[in-house]
Amino acid sequence: MYRDVTCGALRTTDIGRNITLSGWVQKTRDKGFVVWIDLRDRYGITQLVMDEERSTLALLEQARQLGRETVLQVKGTVVERTSKNPNLPTGDIEVLVEGLTVLNPSLLPPFTIEDETDGGDDLRMKYRYLDIRRNPVKNNLIFRHRVSMEVRKYLSEQDFIEVETPYLIKSTPEGARDFLVPSRMNQGQFYALPQSPQTFKQLLMVGGMDKYFQIVKCFRDEDLRADRQPEFTQIDCEMAFVEQEDILNTFEGLTRHLLKEIHNIDVDAFPRMTYDDAMAKYGNDKPDIRFGMEFGELNEVAQHKEFNVFNSAELVVGIAIPGAATFTRKEIDKLIDWVKRPQVGAKGMVYVKYNEDGSFKSSVDKFYDAQDFEQWAQRTQAQPGDLICVLSGTAKATRAQLSALRMEMAERLGLRKADEFAPLWVVDFPLLELDEETGNYHAMHHPFTSPKPEQMELLDSDPGAVKANAYDLVLNGNEIGGGSIRIHDKEIQATMFKHLGFTPEEAKAQFGFLMDAFQYGAPPHGGIAFGLDRLVAILGGQETIRDFIAFPKNNSGRDVMIDAPADIDSTQLDELGIALNLD
Amino acid sequence: MYRDVTCGALRTTDIGRNITLSGWVQKTRDKGFVVWIDLRDRYGITQLVMDEERSTLALLEQARQLGRETVLQVKGTVVERTSKNPNLPTGDIEVLVEGLTVLNPSLLPPFTIEDETDGGDDLRMKYRYLDIRRNPVKNNLIFRHRVSMEVRKYLSEQDFIEVETPYLIKSTPEGARDFLVPSRMNQGQFYALPQSPQTFKQLLMVGGMDKYFQIVKCFRDEDLRADRQPEFTQIDCEMAFVEQEDILNTFEGLTRHLLKEIHNIDVDAFPRMTYDDAMAKYGNDKPDIRFGMEFGELNEVAQHKEFNVFNSAELVVGIAIPGAATFTRKEIDKLIDWVKRPQVGAKGMVYVKYNEDGSFKSSVDKFYDAQDFEQWAQRTQAQPGDLICVLSGTAKATRAQLSALRMEMAERLGLRKADEFAPLWVVDFPLLELDEETGNYHAMHHPFTSPKPEQMELLDSDPGAVKANAYDLVLNGNEIGGGSIRIHDKEIQATMFKHLGFTPEEAKAQFGFLMDAFQYGAPPHGGIAFGLDRLVAILGGQETIRDFIAFPKNNSGRDVMIDAPADIDSTQLDELGIALNLD
Repeated sequence: MYRDVTCGALRTTDIGRNITLSGWVQKTRDKGFVVWIDLRDRYGITQLVMDEERSTLALLEQARQLGRETVLQVKGTVVERTSKNPNLPTGDIEVLVEGLTVLNPSLLPPFTIEDETDGGDDLRMKYRYLDIRRNPVKNNLIFRHRVSMEVRKYLSEQDFIEVETPYLIKSTPEGARDFLVPSRMNQGQFYALPQSPQTFKQLLMVGGMDKYFQIVKCFRDEDLRADRQPEFTQIDCEMAFVEQEDILNTFEGLTRHLLKEIHNIDVDAFPRMTYDDAMAKYGNDKPDIRFGMEFGELNEVAQHKEFNVFNSAELVVGIAIPGAATFTRKEIDKLIDWVKRPQVGAKGMVYVKYNEDGSFKSSVDKFYDAQDFEQWAQRTQAQPGDLICVLSGTAKATRAQLSALRMEMAERLGLRKADEFAPLWVVDFPLLELDEETGNYHAMHHPFTSPKPEQMELLDSDPGAVKANAYDLVLNGNEIGGGSIRIHDKEIQATMFKHLGFTPEEAKAQFGFLMDAFQYGAPPHGGIAFGLDRLVAILGGQETIRDFIAFPKNNSGRDVMIDAPADIDSTQLDELGIALNLD
Repeated sequence: MYRDVTCGALRTTDIGRNITLSGWVQKTRDKGFVVWIDLRDRYGITQLVMDEERSTLALLEQARQLGRETVLQVKGTVVERTSKNPNLPTGDIEVLVEGLTVLNPSLLPPFTIEDETDGGDDLRMKYRYLDIRRNPVKNNLIFRHRVSMEVRKYLSEQDFIEVETPYLIKSTPEGARDFLVPSRMNQGQFYALPQSPQTFKQLLMVGGMDKYFQIVKCFRDEDLRADRQPEFTQIDCEMAFVEQEDILNTFEGLTRHLLKEIHNIDVDAFPRMTYDDAMAKYGNDKPDIRFGMEFGELNEVAQHKEFNVFNSAELVVGIAIPGAATFTRKEIDKLIDWVKRPQVGAKGMVYVKYNEDGSFKSSVDKFYDAQDFEQWAQRTQAQPGDLICVLSGTAKATRAQLSALRMEMAERLGLRKADEFAPLWVVDFPLLELDEETGNYHAMHHPFTSPKPEQMELLDSDPGAVKANAYDLVLNGNEIGGGSIRIHDKEIQATMFKHLGFTPEEAKAQFGFLMDAFQYGAPPHGGIAFGLDRLVAILGGQETIRDFIAFPKNNSGRDVMIDAPADIDSTQLDELGIALNLD
């Protein structure tokens, strides 16, 4: 037996016990007549002690040789510490060592195994197994487990059944790109890895499973943006015989359960906002509502004056940055540079200082007077002391730019508090989205989303205006879940495919099984999927998903630890009936 | 709202309630003046009633038109049944229908949605979404969920952390064949889908995660034998600072928990048997110990007589089939034919009837007398009334043949009772297995399994004799789990790879990351993996895994419902930098 207690367990009540511990040498302190070792395992740190009075010289000598991260087994007696450490759960005791066994030595690690490490990102990823020994990463993985268990517990108690759907499925090139898997037994044919179990969960509803969930890996072969992974985990859910209201209530319940269990936070009924309102008020379909700075549209009060920039704009819109009237000219210039960065893309920015004394000072004093600015202040809900920032241009681009500014200023002002949680349902998403490059519409959510029944006839006349019973759950400015009521009628599904540019043959080849299934008594159904990686990160008060994934890939889709993807044997290619065909 | 109660919920206490139900028409009975409909959902069946006295003619007429599997919404009042059905939880009540809405009609299903269906296997798989509506399949999936939840609950409470390991990893052609995934971002290179998360779970141990588990899909591109799937689910587990004893105790605890929670069965400490004993006593490394028929080795008592077949055999071995002394000559001949089938492969079979009166009658009366047969009976533990069946030949083949006969006879005699559970640990597996075709040794478990430390030196002199701390958990004649204590030393791992025929370069290219990790303080560790599909099937009292998988593949690895694998677009091939290269 390697141990009879872990490094996090011993307390003063254990004093006098003979124990066996195993773990890693966190550090050694050698004071000559006494040597202390901090021994670490997943559960904590226990201080070991040896001294000239109570220990043999040979043992002291052995202890002095131990390098960091050596794996040790220790036998000894629990004794009271003379100098206690109140910051450590085991800080009242130490273990007087009677025998040390080195279970495995360690080379000097390439970075220090401490909460704050000197290891850069690349090094940490290459030696991820050492990075995981660090508390921040280890605790994130334990936290993820806890969240997953709570999700399963809650949904199970609500009669949801976790059903495993297949990973080797069929490629449906619509949407994102599939990862493909050549079939050896059916040479020339390919499986695809699922982008989501969407069609399978709908078939489970046709199959009467009623309430389904699955915590499941999904795959998208996309050019990776920052903080995206080619494989990611979804909490995938579907319910039959439901309307949108049933789904929102159920998953509001799940989210409330998580906030309560994980953070002991009680949240009121989640606010709901239409997509159109979210875009108008925050320029964003996933607004962070932990803070204000709502958009004030200024067309009525800022146009038709002498200022041509505004007059020619589709939208003039501003926000009030709290307490920023004191910004110096230099600070404001830097802010203007910031919105003009290509990542944001504004042409310029108009500002109005709403001074504490009620006066205004702006970059457009030439065109507007105090009475005008009063109205601007009213519409942006500015208070004396605020800085009103105004952008203009096409509605879509200007909203996106102002949203970026709003988020940036909230970040700088510390308004995005990691321990505050503000969930929000965004509802009534458009069914279709215009691809401005091709002029074609594609599904905003996915091709199985039902148009609002009363708007079906708009599909031909004004497809962009059709709304769907589609909804996102937003938490602190992040979309953590999204879903919709699905089509459950073969004809409507066929119409939808037509509008998305599928020929009837293509629709049948790719999704014939689903449309067939709809003919055999498909119930009304709908669902939602949560991005577990992001949900866990946000619940953990962070925004980077990578540190909540045990073995993440880098931005080129590589696992630098195992060095994958990699070359393969030509015999493997031959067996699969494929050959390389590089550019 | 589509319903305010499900079809399994209503009882006499609900009489008088106005309710809304949704579900499928299971069947309609039209008695002219009264029409009954059985409405079905996941939770049960509720009888609907309409009659000339209480319902409108229009409603009766509408009800008469409803075909099977129509999706209905019903509003009505719960009333007491005049003729109750004690076999149905809702059998005391029915719902007097006030309004019917057809939510979706149904074509006539290709097979009946009943517990006993008229649908053949192929049809059921093609319309799996209809098959899942049938109670046997639906209940299997719910059962699987329940087992998975209990596994997670138990392991979580034992401080195990579920960690998700990656699905896009590196190909390691040793062992079974990998499914490969061409990389688009790294053209010419490939990911592989994991055959198991073996190396990752070991790295998690190096990373100090201490106790890991994961319910995870694994992939093997093998030519499919019956009841194998190219993707299957494992309960994958690993522990640090453990010896074999710790692992056996922990997972005996898990299995005991499952038997208790699922079947309310208490099982004593699981028996343990060495691999060598299992082979000698049962001819099988996964013996079914729910019944006896242990092997009796007869070399000493049957050789060196006049019977040359036995004299020239490496092994003469028999079993006593209880109560089979009454078999007719014809029945015995059929049994002899059975062991001579190519699937079993015996050359012939010697039998001895141990009659109720204590006399013997055999096919080798010419060579042996009653005194000989007494000894045979003693060694096979035969009782009067039993039939002793004896096979001979090379030890390995003969044992396998006799094991097949033993299992077949137990099946025929009803000794393999579905509601009896007899777990068994088989321990001390050989480390290496000789591949008789190539003359090379390969790892019996996998290349990371540790040889028993005291036998390390045998590795060079007599590799086949080296045993490992490797173990299987056997339940009712099925291997439900297997694992081992792993190597945690770089040099021993390198030695092992050498013995398995890896050059140092190959070992480094494929597993360098693991051997590197062993240099940074790898703790002693070991683990186990359970086949969830089989575990669930066996706990469910069945042996076919396919009915416990929502969407299984057929023996050619095809999903006949979605028709995968399938052809893909040539643009997809181009993007991946591959081309078809068919034979």
